[in-house]
Amino acid sequence: MSRSNPPAPGLPDWLGQLDEGRRQNFAAGEMISQPEADDNRLFVLTSGRARIWLAGESRALTLALLGPGGIYVTHTRAWVEALEAAETRSWPLSELRALIAERPELAIAALGEIGQVLSGAITLIEDLAFRRVEARLARLLITEAGRQGTDVVHLPESTETLASLCGTSRQTLSTLLNRMVRTGLIARPDRRHLAIADPAGLRDIAELSDG
Amino acid sequence: MSRSNPPAPGLPDWLGQLDEGRRQNFAAGEMISQPEADDNRLFVLTSGRARIWLAGESRALTLALLGPGGIYVTHTRAWVEALEAAETRSWPLSELRALIAERPELAIAALGEIGQVLSGAITLIEDLAFRRVEARLARLLITEAGRQGTDVVHLPESTETLASLCGTSRQTLSTLLNRMVRTGLIARPDRRHLAIADPAGLRDIAELSDG
Repeated sequence: MSRSNPPAPGLPDWLGQLDEGRRQNFAAGEMISQPEADDNRLFVLTSGRARIWLAGESRALTLALLGPGGIYVTHTRAWVEALEAAETRSWPLSELRALIAERPELAIAALGEIGQVLSGAITLIEDLAFRRVEARLARLLITEAGRQGTDVVHLPESTETLASLCGTSRQTLSTLLNRMVRTGLIARPDRRHLAIADPAGLRDIAELSDG
Repeated sequence: MSRSNPPAPGLPDWLGQLDEGRRQNFAAGEMISQPEADDNRLFVLTSGRARIWLAGESRALTLALLGPGGIYVTHTRAWVEALEAAETRSWPLSELRALIAERPELAIAALGEIGQVLSGAITLIEDLAFRRVEARLARLLITEAGRQGTDVVHLPESTETLASLCGTSRQTLSTLLNRMVRTGLIARPDRRHLAIADPAGLRDIAELSDG
C-alpha cells in the first residue's frame, strides 16, 4: 500500500489513501453546510469539532456532534456548524461508489456515523413526543413516593392501568420506562416496583406543563 | 461474474451475489425486529412491505416504509413491522465489512436507505417541534387573507417581526416556510408575499391547540 498523504494522528487510516478532495477551513460558529444546499458532497472533518442541528421552535435541536474523522454530507435538512476552528476535506457524493470500492472502511465509518445521527434524531423524537407522558409519570411517582413514604414505589395496578393513568399506551409506557432507566432517573428492581434514582431530575420533568 | 442465486425480479443485482444468509418469514402485523433486541443483523426485505416506527404518546410515529430490496438492521430503537406477508434474508452485522468489500453496491444501497430513515426522522422532529409555531402562522395567514381580501397575503413587516409574531426565530420561520411550500400549503411568489395554496389544509393546522 502506498500512502501519498498520511493522516494526522487520531484520523482514520483510510483517509490517507483517498485523493486529496477539496480542503476548506471554517471559523468557530461558521456553517459547514446548511439546509437546502444544492451541492451534494461527502465530507470528513479532519480537525476541530462540529454540531449537526435542526432549528426548533425556540432553540437549536442537536442531532449529533462530529469530531476529527467524523463523516457527513452537505446535502441535508440540518445545519452543520463548526464549534471551533475546523478543517474539512470533501468529495462529490457522485464519487461515493468509487471511493467505497477503493476503501470499504469508509462505508463502515459512514454507516456508523449516520447511525449515530439517526440515534440522536430518535432521542429528539422521544424527547418531543414523550414530554407530556413523562411529566405525568414523574408527578405520579413523586406523589406515590410521598404517600407510600418510600423512594421505592410499589405500583398499585397493572401496566395497562399505569399506562392509562399517564394517558398513553402500554407500548409507549414500556419504551418510556426503558428510557428513564437508561438515563438514570429511575431504577426498576422488579416488575411491581419503580425506584426513584434521581429525585431532582424527576422533579424538573414533573414541572413541565401538561399543555 | 457467477450468480449462484439470481434475485427475484425487482430485487437488486448484488443480492444474488451474497451468500444465502438466514431466511425468515413474517405474517402481516408480525414484528421483524423490536427495540432493545440483542441480536444485531443487517437484513434485506426480499418480499412484502414493512414499516419502521416509534411508539409515540398515543400513536405510532412512522420513520420509513421498506419495500422489496429495502435494507435495515435489527439492533435499533425502532419497531420494524411486516405490513403484509414478508420474507427477509439477514446476516450478522459483524460480517458487514466482508459483505461490503464483496459488493460495494450494498453499502451505497444501505447508505441511501438509512438516509431515507433519517429524513423521515427529521420530518417527525419538525412535525413535533413546529406544531405550535405552524398553527400560529396558519392563523395569522388566514386572518390576514380575510383582512386584505385576497389569498396572496402581503407581509406587513420584516421577517424578524413575522417570526416574533409566531413566537419563534427568523431561522426557524425560514425552515418552516420552506417546509410549508414543499408540502403545498403555501406558495411564495416573492419575499413580501405568501399565497395560500391549500386553504383547507391550512385551516386544519390553524385549529391545533396552541398549548
